[in-house]
Amino acid sequence: MKRALNFNAGPAALPQAVLEKAQKEWLNYLDSGMAVMELSHRSAEYEQIHDSADRLLRRLMQIPDDYEVLFLQGGASLQFTMVPMNLLRNDETAYYIMTGSWSEKALSEARKIGSAASLASGKEGMYKNIPSIEASAPDDASYVHLTSNNTIFGTQWQTFPDLFNAPLVADMSSDILSKPINVNQFGLIYAGAQKNLGPSGVTVVIIKKDLLARSDERLPTMLSYQTHAKNRSLYNTPPTLSIYLLSLVLEWVESIGGLPAIEKINSEKAEILYDIIDESNGFYRGHADQGSRSLMNVTFKLETEAATGAFLEQAKEAGFIGLNGHRSIGGCRASLYNAVTIEQVNELAKFMKTFRKNY
Amino acid sequence: MKRALNFNAGPAALPQAVLEKAQKEWLNYLDSGMAVMELSHRSAEYEQIHDSADRLLRRLMQIPDDYEVLFLQGGASLQFTMVPMNLLRNDETAYYIMTGSWSEKALSEARKIGSAASLASGKEGMYKNIPSIEASAPDDASYVHLTSNNTIFGTQWQTFPDLFNAPLVADMSSDILSKPINVNQFGLIYAGAQKNLGPSGVTVVIIKKDLLARSDERLPTMLSYQTHAKNRSLYNTPPTLSIYLLSLVLEWVESIGGLPAIEKINSEKAEILYDIIDESNGFYRGHADQGSRSLMNVTFKLETEAATGAFLEQAKEAGFIGLNGHRSIGGCRASLYNAVTIEQVNELAKFMKTFRKNY
Repeated sequence: MKRALNFNAGPAALPQAVLEKAQKEWLNYLDSGMAVMELSHRSAEYEQIHDSADRLLRRLMQIPDDYEVLFLQGGASLQFTMVPMNLLRNDETAYYIMTGSWSEKALSEARKIGSAASLASGKEGMYKNIPSIEASAPDDASYVHLTSNNTIFGTQWQTFPDLFNAPLVADMSSDILSKPINVNQFGLIYAGAQKNLGPSGVTVVIIKKDLLARSDERLPTMLSYQTHAKNRSLYNTPPTLSIYLLSLVLEWVESIGGLPAIEKINSEKAEILYDIIDESNGFYRGHADQGSRSLMNVTFKLETEAATGAFLEQAKEAGFIGLNGHRSIGGCRASLYNAVTIEQVNELAKFMKTFRKNY
Repeated sequence: MKRALNFNAGPAALPQAVLEKAQKEWLNYLDSGMAVMELSHRSAEYEQIHDSADRLLRRLMQIPDDYEVLFLQGGASLQFTMVPMNLLRNDETAYYIMTGSWSEKALSEARKIGSAASLASGKEGMYKNIPSIEASAPDDASYVHLTSNNTIFGTQWQTFPDLFNAPLVADMSSDILSKPINVNQFGLIYAGAQKNLGPSGVTVVIIKKDLLARSDERLPTMLSYQTHAKNRSLYNTPPTLSIYLLSLVLEWVESIGGLPAIEKINSEKAEILYDIIDESNGFYRGHADQGSRSLMNVTFKLETEAATGAFLEQAKEAGFIGLNGHRSIGGCRASLYNAVTIEQVNELAKFMKTFRKNY
């Protein structure tokens, strides 16, 4: 069976091995006579899936024991609200480092909850680069928030600041699990699953346990991290099917060598496309500054809008999916999440070369 | 392939035809070379799925045009918060009709948001029956809330009150789509999908459009019904796979004759078990009063705890899944959601007769 050349920005390609395993077990999970989504979330079979997702994520990301792993719903967008609801204390301010549209949304939601401000912003430079920040947050900082990878502008933090006086909170929706990181640098990490983790519909939150004390007991039960931490994400019915698929993706990541191996492949994939851009004498123009380039989303345009349009049209005809840039900035974008293969990236590279020669 | 005798209270059995169709399309949806969950939520293919779920639900439930249908996340438990956040106005009170644990949780969450009170309660009678209420709500009522079916106690509203001075809000998580209802009687209906609609991870909200004006613009974006209504539930990435499976379940309901046909089968299924209980001379003892019995969850116990224990143990050995009552009240519970077949219910009936004879 021919797999699509899927460069979607998310929901995105998933590993074929994962899809095949899920299909095989679909009607009769572990000989139970039931599909995974027909299992009670209190059954031993489901508990095992749930625990396996937790254990695998901890092992792959080397999450220390003083962190909780939560499986929630609502996407990163709901975390934009839950983070300040739970972490932002009176008389303190939440500081946001602005690297694109998602940071803007996160800050705007935080302002609905309490005092929140921009600490640094790349907006004037059209979000082409990641601003550098001081190692020390302002004295009244409740936390400092960043977006680790910016799908729309194609930028990515290369190293994270080592804050010593406020917890660092990161929206890692679009690059979690794409490379090893040091979880100890963060107070809280959150990520919608639909890029590197699995299907949309489950959100991973990794939170340092000492931060759970900040959740006020007057918070709505479902919006308190404490609720979910106390109940191992089983306070109410979790999205069982999505968590099952997440667990299969995690198994797959482990099977191919874990995050060091994934990082190597991801670097190789991105390099193939950035090389084409850099060697094209301005035919392809990358959006992000070189030092801020994302390994996950390669954003570029051609010299004229007409050329960009022709490129996207012919790419579509050639079977490439999802190469249109986000509607807010236009241009082109190739998303290279974990499940996109080197072979697929090579096909795109070949297409880009041929298009340039013929245009 | 042998299907399990699945009487789970939710997540619960799904129609075999739905599972088989999903399995067939799993790796290559409409020849796209992608699984449904790999499609962009902005793609034409996914838009069609999304619209189809909306259209089918409207047709099956005869939802009038002055209602919005929303596909959200977080389960009914998040609606316990979103309903008062959006609908409860200053200087008004939200009234709750208490018919069990879920009503209690809903009221308790509403109290975190504003003024909320119990209007009537079946608690003193161990929630064995649905209280009767006046056609008129108190003058300061922002809305009146009820739980249409109570999974734990096995009771169900047989007819709904026709309120004329306050919107009626119903948590229909456990009996939506089980019979025809008159949507016009309600201001808002919400339901987690994992009983009659599909997998866990998607929540349906049906809201009368004029109530959307109550959502304050200062609400967190993701917690405002207006956000989701304006964006056709595509403000952020929806749980695409769950909505796809929901659309298949809706197709299946239509294919077997819609809600009138479903109601007939559901009545027949419940009657089989209630007859066994009623004809057992007290060997099996139903929890719910006859006039409040649920067609979805048949709750009963045996004369002694030992007998109940023996029944559950032998039932489990015989392959019946999910017959344990909720841990809060014990006993037995057979959940007979739409996908449970008459043949499966007959097998349970046969087992109950045999057990009685042999015990």
